[in-house]
Amino acid sequence: MSLHLQRDLEKLKKEILKLGTMVESAINNAILALNNREMLYVDEVLRLEDHINEMEVKIEEDCLKILALHQPVAGDLRFIVVSLKVNNDLERMGDFAKNIAKRARELMQEEPISTLPEFVNELPNLVRTMVRNSLDALVKLDVSLAREVIAMDDKVDEINRAMYQEVTRVAKENASKTGVAISLLSTSRYMERIGDLSTNIAEDVIFMVEGRVIRHDD
Amino acid sequence: MSLHLQRDLEKLKKEILKLGTMVESAINNAILALNNREMLYVDEVLRLEDHINEMEVKIEEDCLKILALHQPVAGDLRFIVVSLKVNNDLERMGDFAKNIAKRARELMQEEPISTLPEFVNELPNLVRTMVRNSLDALVKLDVSLAREVIAMDDKVDEINRAMYQEVTRVAKENASKTGVAISLLSTSRYMERIGDLSTNIAEDVIFMVEGRVIRHDD
Repeated sequence: MSLHLQRDLEKLKKEILKLGTMVESAINNAILALNNREMLYVDEVLRLEDHINEMEVKIEEDCLKILALHQPVAGDLRFIVVSLKVNNDLERMGDFAKNIAKRARELMQEEPISTLPEFVNELPNLVRTMVRNSLDALVKLDVSLAREVIAMDDKVDEINRAMYQEVTRVAKENASKTGVAISLLSTSRYMERIGDLSTNIAEDVIFMVEGRVIRHDD
Repeated sequence: MSLHLQRDLEKLKKEILKLGTMVESAINNAILALNNREMLYVDEVLRLEDHINEMEVKIEEDCLKILALHQPVAGDLRFIVVSLKVNNDLERMGDFAKNIAKRARELMQEEPISTLPEFVNELPNLVRTMVRNSLDALVKLDVSLAREVIAMDDKVDEINRAMYQEVTRVAKENASKTGVAISLLSTSRYMERIGDLSTNIAEDVIFMVEGRVIRHDD
């Protein structure tokens, strides 16, 4: 591998990690907005989301430049293609963080309703761990960590189903809470989607290391 | 451009179109399952989704092969990168079609509730047109058609907001309908997400033709 290519790939890896850190921060702030009902967290998510979008565009351009300039093959080529996909997945996570923040802003106008403790504590923690571990797996090319991320997705789906039951129950018991209940359900679905995107990243790590496509294995 | 590269790019374009046709068919069947309440449409969506997943994996492998073998530059390189992204977007549309079909299967067990005519007729038609036109724009590199797709997304969002109001109203009036109402809202959100993915494709077409990134312009 030429020194130039090596240097550009290292730079790309750093950029992806920086984007990942911004996305994690956006998710954290979105969850704080939801739980603490304070506008400053919403504003922070919106600010971060702008930067995430700019960064995504830059990373895609950089991938194209590396492809055109160095015409990498084998593992390096797979790394660039995976970077393009991870870049896209991270940007979508930023979108979902923004959606959660916007719902949080609406929910601040309403009386809070009691929700599942799994939703308030366990789901955000799970999703944050999935995001963090999928990025760690990418950097360290750690296949077993990537598999852990994929396994966590089942628990996320389970909490989401419980949330759906809870929301339906609340809405049935007290019709005036229907709007709030549906908004809460939306936020839990956005978190589920963030978990799905982490799973995508973990699958791409396995693809990159083992050269085997495991998505759609289920 | 070498004849080999030209031939491989033509083949790739045909594969993407074939995948697009399968995705369109999955969406059509999902909507039929929802409106006609018949299991044969659900089964057809699940069958198609398996093929869509296989096809997506194959197209990604083909893109990697073309990159490694021909090391294309400029417009050809952009076409491959856009193909990778469109491939991903189409596969996700297939997932959403499957989600709609699964909701349709649940809804068949329940008494139907009257919903907005915009939801039953206009939203599916809009979304199908967006999918079809985004693929047409890709094949013909038609920027003005791509811009039409992007403009349609506002109408989809508007119907979705109306659907949200309607669902909240139904659930408030009749608590026993809450579950059905929330499931219907999910299907309308899945359609919205399919529309979003068509918008992604349209934006990528504009990027490919004009070399300018227009996503995040809003």
